[in-house]
Amino acid sequence: MSDSPKTSPIKPRKLNEVTQWDMETDVAVVGFGGAGACAAIEAADAGADAIIFEVTSASGGSTALSSAEIYMGGNGGTRVQQACGYEDSTEDMFNYLMEANGALADETRIRAYCEGSLEHFDWLVDKGVPYKDTEYKQRAIMAPTDDCLLYTGNEKAWPFRDKAKPCPRGHNLEIEGDNGGPLLMKILTENVEKRGIRVEYDARALTLIADENGEVHGLVVRIDREEKAVRARKGVILCAGGFCMNEEMVKKYCPLLENGNMPIGNPGDTGSGQLMGAGVGGALIHMNEHFITLPFYPPANQTYGIFVNSQGQRFINEDCYHGRVAYHVIRQVSQRIYLVLSAEGYEHSKYLNADIAGTGETVEELAEELELDADQLRHTIEFYNKHAANGEDPLFHKGEAWLKPIEAPYAALDCTPGRGAFFPFFTLGGLDALPSGEVLRMDKSVIKGLYAAGRTTCGMPRTAAGYSSGMSVGDATYFGRLAGKQAANRAE
Amino acid sequence: MSDSPKTSPIKPRKLNEVTQWDMETDVAVVGFGGAGACAAIEAADAGADAIIFEVTSASGGSTALSSAEIYMGGNGGTRVQQACGYEDSTEDMFNYLMEANGALADETRIRAYCEGSLEHFDWLVDKGVPYKDTEYKQRAIMAPTDDCLLYTGNEKAWPFRDKAKPCPRGHNLEIEGDNGGPLLMKILTENVEKRGIRVEYDARALTLIADENGEVHGLVVRIDREEKAVRARKGVILCAGGFCMNEEMVKKYCPLLENGNMPIGNPGDTGSGQLMGAGVGGALIHMNEHFITLPFYPPANQTYGIFVNSQGQRFINEDCYHGRVAYHVIRQVSQRIYLVLSAEGYEHSKYLNADIAGTGETVEELAEELELDADQLRHTIEFYNKHAANGEDPLFHKGEAWLKPIEAPYAALDCTPGRGAFFPFFTLGGLDALPSGEVLRMDKSVIKGLYAAGRTTCGMPRTAAGYSSGMSVGDATYFGRLAGKQAANRAE
Repeated sequence: MSDSPKTSPIKPRKLNEVTQWDMETDVAVVGFGGAGACAAIEAADAGADAIIFEVTSASGGSTALSSAEIYMGGNGGTRVQQACGYEDSTEDMFNYLMEANGALADETRIRAYCEGSLEHFDWLVDKGVPYKDTEYKQRAIMAPTDDCLLYTGNEKAWPFRDKAKPCPRGHNLEIEGDNGGPLLMKILTENVEKRGIRVEYDARALTLIADENGEVHGLVVRIDREEKAVRARKGVILCAGGFCMNEEMVKKYCPLLENGNMPIGNPGDTGSGQLMGAGVGGALIHMNEHFITLPFYPPANQTYGIFVNSQGQRFINEDCYHGRVAYHVIRQVSQRIYLVLSAEGYEHSKYLNADIAGTGETVEELAEELELDADQLRHTIEFYNKHAANGEDPLFHKGEAWLKPIEAPYAALDCTPGRGAFFPFFTLGGLDALPSGEVLRMDKSVIKGLYAAGRTTCGMPRTAAGYSSGMSVGDATYFGRLAGKQAANRAE
Repeated sequence: MSDSPKTSPIKPRKLNEVTQWDMETDVAVVGFGGAGACAAIEAADAGADAIIFEVTSASGGSTALSSAEIYMGGNGGTRVQQACGYEDSTEDMFNYLMEANGALADETRIRAYCEGSLEHFDWLVDKGVPYKDTEYKQRAIMAPTDDCLLYTGNEKAWPFRDKAKPCPRGHNLEIEGDNGGPLLMKILTENVEKRGIRVEYDARALTLIADENGEVHGLVVRIDREEKAVRARKGVILCAGGFCMNEEMVKKYCPLLENGNMPIGNPGDTGSGQLMGAGVGGALIHMNEHFITLPFYPPANQTYGIFVNSQGQRFINEDCYHGRVAYHVIRQVSQRIYLVLSAEGYEHSKYLNADIAGTGETVEELAEELELDADQLRHTIEFYNKHAANGEDPLFHKGEAWLKPIEAPYAALDCTPGRGAFFPFFTLGGLDALPSGEVLRMDKSVIKGLYAAGRTTCGMPRTAAGYSSGMSVGDATYFGRLAGKQAANRAE
């Protein structure tokens, strides 16, 4: 069998083979997305020299491509939560995140995330990130207005609402439309520049430099077609994103992602951070885990619909987060999936990209077009409608606000994986790291001189089953900061 | 964070620190279960010296605890298949195993397994393994009689039956009751002894011995409280089982296994083979994958029942393999699971260990006891019954042979994970290896001198979703043989 260079750990350069240092710094940061920016800022503020190496010609990373909502709360509530009348407790936030991650939860990391969340909000505000003291009250993936606070996950949905008091924790920047990512990265970039942090753009990190004990001393980067040896006296921080753009790695590690799924991220999400880390012995954990979603709202009124599977049965409470729907879609025993709606009031969802699979004045007509058993589909709709009329969903406990009988004429959207509906994904597995960013080997020993944050690590969010928008940028920015501080304060 | 020695790779002893060899051999085999026995026999038959190191005082491993059915066929059919009137084709077997493993399938390994299967049957027979030319025609996990051939998986069940022509491929030894495992291991042990292969019992393999290039030269074993350095001129073959008995590893790698599941295997299934292999750079792949099951048959007539989930909905065709049922049980959005049966003709299943959760003269009574929605449960039963009476199952395509209306009075068994029903599991992830047994690093390069087989590797069966009884012992014995041959024929 031949080598698979695209899934192979990247062998480090041996320290004793480095004949000269082309650059020297305290902290070298690989990747100028949300995690890398925050790491560099904190390193600089702790008094360390830092250089950021970014493979593209601009800062941004996948954070700039996202809405850059950040999941924050607890500790009595952020300024915005309080202004909007929410008194969020750390325990509610902790319990929610533990439930959200289920058996995959890293309790230490979740605890750190919750306890530091208010301070993180204040830090972002201090850096100039604008948050308006208002709430966006509609069900959405992100606020299309410049309002700040919104529910972005499963907080109000069964079974989560029974495990922790619901509270909105998605913080959307004060900017209209899906423009939070560019704004956040603009502000963080200004903070980087203001501190005089050196940034090398168009600089591809090739490999780490390690000594015979596995301690990391720097890295090799390619700039202007030349390899440069960079000494990082205190450490290298890998903030190079996930591996969703590396088809071979996705195939190897995430076999569930077979059918027409679309990676979301930037072209640099090739797993190079994971592979560099693995090259010096970093453990890769939960590599099969990923975020996947089916963005069926907005418009929020699609939530009045019901998802049915090949059996014409419902399988989820439709008021849960769209990622949780997709998580369960790809676990159905067979995966023809339809979203059945009242045709009246139907609005096209620009994200979903699902074709209309069938319509009908009667359930029989609809069933025939969907090739579903008509009796079963009729039962599903009638049972749902009967209880919805009473504000109840005895099977899946969909919230009362989203219960309304589905009425003829009917329409059904084809949400079957592989038939065109948008199933974006990104990866959640990565380097095992402490909350401080210190990268761990399989034996949980720390690799001296190596740190990581963001999707290069297996971070706080670990499963689509309990994901909320804002968790990934939240994890990247918060733990990016901790990594920057930890590296800067490392005793040489 | 402290070290986790139970999940840590075992660091190899450096070759240049070995001051003397206490034993020397061509091939050192770790573990005397099915894989190890076959590896040693083939190594000896290829002219190599071999020593088996077994941690317990007897041969057996987990193979001896199993029924030792072996999944074989293709190539026109084994002697038994042909005698029973089945002309099995290699393509049907290949297509079935590809479908059974889905996105996890290792095509090269499956191809090797299918093409070598007839020869493997003949090899076993030649070694003295008795197979009667008869078929056991009832639905069972293993033949309780001394009959040989039976269906042991999903071959006849939807959707597999549409992908490959069904054929029984489970080969049960000619012995009554669940005694195949001890008999197979007795015969293989006699073959080992007959060849004069040295066996060291009560010998714990501690670590591999490797040089600075990572090539394996032997291993350190502890015998009579003393460490012995064993030189293996041609190679070490790790056949040390899976890791189901290592709670920390299970928790780390198989988070889905949370609720009252029971490891099945021998106490030596501690992952030591995986951890020794990882210590010299062997890649551990698909570590989250496992076999899990809910052995609800025999008695076969439980197959006439229907499984319902917390929603009172069916979720699987009940004529599929019991492991496939369990695979889907632990993927339900909430996991109260009942097997609903006609009380008349009910027979107690000695394996299942499920309590009766409710009974009822009417569906309403039953629903009340099960705390399920009565209307939904009534629909599920009535819909099922209406079609079953016509030999149809429009939703899950259960085979006609198992379709019979469920009649009052009803009984329901509690198959909810964590409430007592037997959910045995073992692990399917492990070292990445070629069909030849050669262990691979993450970059797919071969670790010279290191081989592995059986559950120490990630072998042919990779998911409970498509498992058939006989796949694990089949994989262990067949690829154990290949590893023994490969090691013996290695040019030094």
